Amino acid sequence: MKKLINDPADVVTEALSGIAAAHPDLRVDLDHKIVYRADAPVQGKVGLLSGGGSGHEPLHGGFVGPGMLDAACAGEVFTSPVPDQMLEATRGIDGGAGVLHIVKNYTGDVMNFEMAAELAAADTGVEVVSVVTNDDVAVQDSLYTAGRRGVGVTVLVEKLAGAAADEGRDLAGVAAVARRVNEAGRSMGVALTSCTVPAAGRPTFDLPEDEMEIGIGIHGEPGRRRVPLAPAREVAEMLVEPILADRDFTGDGGALLFVNGMGGTPLLELYVMYREVSRILAKAGVSVARSLVGPYITSLEMAGCSVTLLQLDDELLRLWDAPVRTPGMRWGA
Amino acid sequence: MKKLINDPADVVTEALSGIAAAHPDLRVDLDHKIVYRADAPVQGKVGLLSGGGSGHEPLHGGFVGPGMLDAACAGEVFTSPVPDQMLEATRGIDGGAGVLHIVKNYTGDVMNFEMAAELAAADTGVEVVSVVTNDDVAVQDSLYTAGRRGVGVTVLVEKLAGAAADEGRDLAGVAAVARRVNEAGRSMGVALTSCTVPAAGRPTFDLPEDEMEIGIGIHGEPGRRRVPLAPAREVAEMLVEPILADRDFTGDGGALLFVNGMGGTPLLELYVMYREVSRILAKAGVSVARSLVGPYITSLEMAGCSVTLLQLDDELLRLWDAPVRTPGMRWGA
Repeated sequence: MKKLINDPADVVTEALSGIAAAHPDLRVDLDHKIVYRADAPVQGKVGLLSGGGSGHEPLHGGFVGPGMLDAACAGEVFTSPVPDQMLEATRGIDGGAGVLHIVKNYTGDVMNFEMAAELAAADTGVEVVSVVTNDDVAVQDSLYTAGRRGVGVTVLVEKLAGAAADEGRDLAGVAAVARRVNEAGRSMGVALTSCTVPAAGRPTFDLPEDEMEIGIGIHGEPGRRRVPLAPAREVAEMLVEPILADRDFTGDGGALLFVNGMGGTPLLELYVMYREVSRILAKAGVSVARSLVGPYITSLEMAGCSVTLLQLDDELLRLWDAPVRTPGMRWGA
Repeated sequence: MKKLINDPADVVTEALSGIAAAHPDLRVDLDHKIVYRADAPVQGKVGLLSGGGSGHEPLHGGFVGPGMLDAACAGEVFTSPVPDQMLEATRGIDGGAGVLHIVKNYTGDVMNFEMAAELAAADTGVEVVSVVTNDDVAVQDSLYTAGRRGVGVTVLVEKLAGAAADEGRDLAGVAAVARRVNEAGRSMGVALTSCTVPAAGRPTFDLPEDEMEIGIGIHGEPGRRRVPLAPAREVAEMLVEPILADRDFTGDGGALLFVNGMGGTPLLELYVMYREVSRILAKAGVSVARSLVGPYITSLEMAGCSVTLLQLDDELLRLWDAPVRTPGMRWGA
C-alpha cells in the first residue's frame, strides 16, 4: 500500500487536524470529528449538517462554509459516523431555525442520522428534518443500501440547499429545495481501478487490466456489470443512456452537467469525458446551462468518473450562482 | 493502460474541446491549442501568457480568467508547445500594454518561448517580457533542464502577477512581481508511483512497491534519491528540510504553504501531509499566513505530492487575496 499517511488508524483524525491548520474559516472538533464553519451557529439561519464515511473528500468537510454546510461529521474511511457525533453537531449549528440533515442513502448513514434526529428532538428540542439523497440509477438495492445509493447529487443538494438557507428560508423551505434537487438529479459512475482503504491495506476489489465496472458505487460496491475497456465515447454512452432513460432533462431551465472524478483520474480525462457527454446530451435535446468538472465526491484514489445530471429551473439557477465560500467550492464571496 | 480517452493522439484536442464546452467564460482556439479568456484582449491591461506540456491540469488552461492568465498554450502531454502557438496567443492578448510570458524552466519551453518573443518583437511590435520559474530545490540541472526546474511556484506566480496586472501595473511592474515571487518561493516533490503518458501506453518509470522517489520532477524525471516508503511525518521532513536549507521563510509577512497533489493522491492524504509540514514549520519558526491544498500542478495520475513555500509580505498578501475567476482557482468575484 503506497500512501502518504502515518498509522492507518490515525488517518482521519490527522487529516482533520490538517484541515483545521489550513483553513482558519473552519473550526474542527477533533474529539467528535466534526468540521464546523468557525462562526457557527448562525443565528436565525437554518443549519445544514451532512456527513458520512471519510475517503470521499472534498465531500463533506470541504463543503463547510458560507453558502453550503454549517458542519460535517466524519466517519472512519467508508464507515458512517455515529449518532453522538451527529447530535453534537446538530446542537452546535442550531441558530434557532432548526437543522437540516443531508444524508446519502446507505443503510448505516440513514440509521445513524435517524437516531441522531430522535435524540435531538428528545434531548435538545432542536427541530430536525432529514433529506436522503438517492440519485444513483445504477442499482436498486446494493451491498450497503436499500433502494438507490446517494452519490453526486449530494454535492448539488449541499450547494443549493445551502444557498436557500442563506436566502433566509425556513426549515421546511430549505428541506423542500433539497428534496426537489434530489428528485431532479440522476447519476451513474464507472471505475477503472479499485481503491485501497488504509486500514485494509489492500485493494477493495480486483478488476482485471482489460476491464472496467459500470455503475460502480463510491465504496467500490458492485455496479451493473463488468465490461471490456472501451473508448471514452462509449463509456459516456454507458453512463448517460441509463440516466436519460430514467428521467427527462429537456426542461426549460436547462440542465446542470456534473462530471466528477473518482480521485485517481486526471482532469485531462474528465474534460475528454465532459466533451463526450455533452455531445450525447446535445443529440438528445438536453441543453446544458451550468457545469461542474472535477473531483468533488471521490473514492480515495479510485480511477474512474461519474456523471450527474440535474434539471434546473429559474430558482435552482439563482441558487447555484449564489456565492459560496468553502475549501472545496468557492465563488462570488 | 486504463484511461478515459479515445485515440491517445486526440487527448489534448478533445480535452480542450471539453474545456470550451464546459466554460463559456473561456474561448478555445482548437487549431492552435490556446485557451483564452473570452474577453481577451483586455484593453490597457498587461496580458499574461503561460503554457507548457499538457498533463499538469489545471495548470495552465485552468488558470485562464480574470485575476490570472489571459491565455495558455497547450502542448502535447509533457511536450512543450511550439513558438507559432505562443506568437498567436501573444497577439491575441495584447491590449496595448505588452505581454508577460510565464515560462517553467524546461529547455524546450524556454527555447520556444524565447523564439516566440523574438517573433513577436519582429512581426507585431508587441512588447514581451519573459519570466522563468525555477523553484524546485531537488536538483541542479536534470533530464530536461539546465538549472533548477520550474514547478509549484508557477501557480503562485500566475495568481500574483495576474492580480498585479489587474491593479493596472505596467509590464515592467508585473514582471517585477513575477520575478519576486519566483525568487521568494521554493518547492520539492515526492512520487509514490509513476504515471502513464497516453501516447506511450506504459508507465514512464518503474518504482518498486516498497520505494518512493524524493525530489521527483513533474514529468517523472529523476529526483534526488529513491528511499523506502516512510510515514508521512518522515516524508514531510524529507521535503521541507531542503527547502528551509535553501532559503529563509521567517520574514514578517509569514509564508504561503502550498501542498500540491500530483494527481493520484487523495485529498485526505494531502491534509495529513499539510498537518506534518505545518508542524515542522512551526518548530522552525515559520508562520503560515495563507494556504493552498489540492491538485493544482499535476503529473497525470501520479501518486505523490509537492510542497511549495512562498515568503509573503504586505503586497503579496494583498495580491493573493485579490479576486480570481478561473476554472481551477476562483474566489471573491
